[in-house]
Amino acid sequence: MDTFVTGGTLLTMRDDRLGIVDSGALAVTDGRLSYVGPAAEAPAPSDADEVVDAEGSVVMPGLVNAHTHMAHTLLRGGAQDVPEIEWMNRALGPLSAHADEHDRVAGTRLGVLEAVRGGATTICEYASEVETLVEEVYQPLGVDVVAVETINEVPEERDDLGPRELYPFDREQGERALARADRLFEQFGDDPLVTPAYGPQALDMVSPDLLRTVQALAHERGAKLHLHTAQGEREAIQIEERYGADESTVSVLEELGIVEDSLVAVHCHGATPAEREQLAAGGAAMLGCPSSISAIDGIVPPVAEFREYGAPVGIGTDQAPGPGHHSMFREARTAATLSKVEHTDPTALTAPEALRLATVGGAAALGIADEVGTLEAGTRADFVVVETDRLSTAPAVESPLHTAVPNLVYSTTGREVRDVFVAGEAVLRDGAFVDADPEAAVAEATERARALYERASGDWRAADSALVDAVDGGWL
Amino acid sequence: MDTFVTGGTLLTMRDDRLGIVDSGALAVTDGRLSYVGPAAEAPAPSDADEVVDAEGSVVMPGLVNAHTHMAHTLLRGGAQDVPEIEWMNRALGPLSAHADEHDRVAGTRLGVLEAVRGGATTICEYASEVETLVEEVYQPLGVDVVAVETINEVPEERDDLGPRELYPFDREQGERALARADRLFEQFGDDPLVTPAYGPQALDMVSPDLLRTVQALAHERGAKLHLHTAQGEREAIQIEERYGADESTVSVLEELGIVEDSLVAVHCHGATPAEREQLAAGGAAMLGCPSSISAIDGIVPPVAEFREYGAPVGIGTDQAPGPGHHSMFREARTAATLSKVEHTDPTALTAPEALRLATVGGAAALGIADEVGTLEAGTRADFVVVETDRLSTAPAVESPLHTAVPNLVYSTTGREVRDVFVAGEAVLRDGAFVDADPEAAVAEATERARALYERASGDWRAADSALVDAVDGGWL
Repeated sequence: MDTFVTGGTLLTMRDDRLGIVDSGALAVTDGRLSYVGPAAEAPAPSDADEVVDAEGSVVMPGLVNAHTHMAHTLLRGGAQDVPEIEWMNRALGPLSAHADEHDRVAGTRLGVLEAVRGGATTICEYASEVETLVEEVYQPLGVDVVAVETINEVPEERDDLGPRELYPFDREQGERALARADRLFEQFGDDPLVTPAYGPQALDMVSPDLLRTVQALAHERGAKLHLHTAQGEREAIQIEERYGADESTVSVLEELGIVEDSLVAVHCHGATPAEREQLAAGGAAMLGCPSSISAIDGIVPPVAEFREYGAPVGIGTDQAPGPGHHSMFREARTAATLSKVEHTDPTALTAPEALRLATVGGAAALGIADEVGTLEAGTRADFVVVETDRLSTAPAVESPLHTAVPNLVYSTTGREVRDVFVAGEAVLRDGAFVDADPEAAVAEATERARALYERASGDWRAADSALVDAVDGGWL
Repeated sequence: MDTFVTGGTLLTMRDDRLGIVDSGALAVTDGRLSYVGPAAEAPAPSDADEVVDAEGSVVMPGLVNAHTHMAHTLLRGGAQDVPEIEWMNRALGPLSAHADEHDRVAGTRLGVLEAVRGGATTICEYASEVETLVEEVYQPLGVDVVAVETINEVPEERDDLGPRELYPFDREQGERALARADRLFEQFGDDPLVTPAYGPQALDMVSPDLLRTVQALAHERGAKLHLHTAQGEREAIQIEERYGADESTVSVLEELGIVEDSLVAVHCHGATPAEREQLAAGGAAMLGCPSSISAIDGIVPPVAEFREYGAPVGIGTDQAPGPGHHSMFREARTAATLSKVEHTDPTALTAPEALRLATVGGAAALGIADEVGTLEAGTRADFVVVETDRLSTAPAVESPLHTAVPNLVYSTTGREVRDVFVAGEAVLRDGAFVDADPEAAVAEATERARALYERASGDWRAADSALVDAVDGGWL
């Protein structure tokens, strides 16, 4: 036995419930959980190389941040509080167009360290040239990554198109992206912490033919196909223009045979309830980003509904500009709070349900629930120790109910995460990174952000978003 | 000069904007700000007893938590995710009925330390026998408190009343509470950090005659009258039964002449838009608790609307069971996020607007804006230093826009608050309390909570809220 964790309350997430074990213990052997259960029945800790005292803490599966674009963390604070139509083209776009590869790596490093500091052990990274981010950030840190390569056939420059003009498709651009995606499987095939996946960006940005090619490859490799699905008005207009006035993203996906087990449908706030049920019935998984979609669109994504349809459902923090953060405990809180007001129902998405979304739910949606998201003997030893005896989480009582469960969701700041283990290796101990330097990451990101904003500042001002007025008015 | 703070970005909140000063400085003399402005024009720091380096940080007014019932922090995690109708009577009530004075003090201490750790320097405490909490918790810690004594004429035991039966009024109970409120003014008259106020609990819980007596006393003393206003269905029914089917809380308050400058109307989510405008037009201030009202009622309180009516508006964390927390940065985020989805408008309640609510807005609503809520020479030296070079808040750039402003609201965990000063005295330095012991506070609260839940557990189970099922089902 390598590591023995004892004395805490376990939230195992087993049997479709929380699977709570008071005075529990974990044993880790060769990167996998070799015992999960009551401390009283555990193997002798004297066999362990290291004993972790989890008294006063909860021990639970590492959190799964199921959808992110981490590179944009460099532009945190650069694009928010603007009309939806301005967010990409007039606020974030004029900045991100100036980001180079080093900027993207620096932003990703900042965001990933923030996420792991807050308890995430698995992050789904959706990016173009994701390989670089995996090699430069995720592998050195030693956390799980679902690496999704963006596949997009629409050339970047499309500003001169009218609202009902069809985006042109550039098949070669799409094929190059697909080739990058394919390479991930060879390149990272021997790293169990990297799960490659295909990321056709959205139905308005890939041709049906390429989408079917991607699907065939996904089947061949047993991989997932992550698709931003029914993201809003602009997508809906493109679908109508290209496929006919009666068509929607979901109807076209259905006709193309894409609504099946390999599909991971992201967002879906533009789909009707019937269409969402159709996605779930077809076997698709769903991912929601409550902080992001509320910040950018003023919309509550249908996370609570996804659960009710019986689909595998996860949540993620998307990109920092807008929602601001990469803390999965906060994302769980935001999911619960927004679901309650969406339904005028304080019982909508309870704290335990939200905790499941942030762990086993995300793992199931990403197709890796046999390895992560629960605590059970035989699975990968991805877990976190979270202190429940802090100003923000106390008091923790175990009877007649476990107050730690709601307090983790509704009150934790994220800084109560004391230890983070991935595949049995400590990534964070006593709140400090074992092998990473957060101060250096912050310093590099800040230096790069300053230079980027300086390069971009003319374009940013010319794009004339609401933020330019806010600056001129003394608000920002 | 006692203290000189230099090198940070100031958010002064002056001139109805953010009042941003890059490379700013503050000087503190005898507990008051004696200089606020550019560091380059500041008096010589060599005169100061202590120099605080705020490089890489924002220096801003201490946050104002404008409405709380801190004693309930002992029961954090004990009542949430239940139908609105169950929350008080079947979830929180069966627990809180077992709290004694020591429990209330322990809960208050936990909540106040959490709030101050998160950057609050002023807390509005609404409680019965608030004097004890002021003496035991607020004065020893040395933070500002607006001490509101609850005045309620309805006897506790009213479980046997049908939904349309009027609550009985016990005038003597009300008079005793009023006498306690009156005593606060003598008792704390020489402590500038204590601002007493009257707290007639709600229009369904006090008689018109007592309410007018309270109002006359408030006028005499220049004090505020804090009233939970239009809190929901049960209150609306009581008002209809007592005053007539066409009456509402606001219509009765208007007829009684209570809608004027001394009124601080709390919540108001049950009032119509026209009634809210009427409150604002009459001179009333408004307080909203977005985390609490969304958690307990599934409703977005009309905070963004209050601003538009031009009323002084603040926000607060209410009580921990339900919303969970006492972090004012999180409350600002929650206010902004919920306002956006309520109006399907990402521009509703921007980050800078939310920051103003959490500082000068609350101060104005509480009637203490001449002393706290902004940074300007002559006012009380209540300020916080918040690090913007942390994983959760970086990168901070100053041009072309200040990313720290949205990042404080949307991304801070609250733990970036490094220093908290009240009336020029350090309450928190480098993240550690100067004169308080948070670990002891947590330990005492946990011990008391365990004993309380043990005493209450039979009643709690008998009340049979949805939480009992959750426990029995393995969810809690």
